[in-house]
Amino acid sequence: MDKINLVEKLGLISEYWHPKIVGEINDSFVMLVKLKGEFIWHLHESEDEMFLVLKGRLRIKPRRGDVILRDGEFFIVPKGVEHMPVADEEVHALLLEPKTILNTGNFTNEKTVEAEWL
Amino acid sequence: MDKINLVEKLGLISEYWHPKIVGEINDSFVMLVKLKGEFIWHLHESEDEMFLVLKGRLRIKPRRGDVILRDGEFFIVPKGVEHMPVADEEVHALLLEPKTILNTGNFTNEKTVEAEWL
Repeated sequence: MDKINLVEKLGLISEYWHPKIVGEINDSFVMLVKLKGEFIWHLHESEDEMFLVLKGRLRIKPRRGDVILRDGEFFIVPKGVEHMPVADEEVHALLLEPKTILNTGNFTNEKTVEAEWL
Repeated sequence: MDKINLVEKLGLISEYWHPKIVGEINDSFVMLVKLKGEFIWHLHESEDEMFLVLKGRLRIKPRRGDVILRDGEFFIVPKGVEHMPVADEEVHALLLEPKTILNTGNFTNEKTVEAEWL
């Protein structure tokens, strides 16, 4: 593989809430995503999920209280924990997730998308 | 867990080449490290390893040609590929590696350290 420049790759993403794969590491994908607005409450039964904010302000609402992430901050949502990401303004983030993960977790609806390579 | 601020956590690291664990995600650790100087040629037989440069300029020398990473760039060294990280000036990096990994890969010497939580 080649090296990946995060800003350059993010420039190729136009749709919100559609994570794009930029790297493969062991059983996981490194993904980039642009977020704006509210997602849905969901959980991943057997996968921890990492959100690293590269730009913007992301609220990840676990039921027990909001986590607010800004540039250069990350949070790992443990498997089984319900959460809803909310971005009042556009957010750029790096995600790390097992290849098996579904973006909407335990739901399948109009927000469900299959991760594709950028 | 709480959120992690990368710059804040890096401020707690003083030794070079001693990766510190800042997160646990599935079978992997998220680690932070400060690098300066040359490491050693080594490989990880069964683990891919990700280097994301947060600050500085890191050369990762796979035998087939250097990869040069600057702020906001990452490279995944595939398992089995010999490599030597070189930092002419201080580099801050985020690493993602399976929990089983040894920093010196297929060697054990004076540079071998056990990853510890920061």
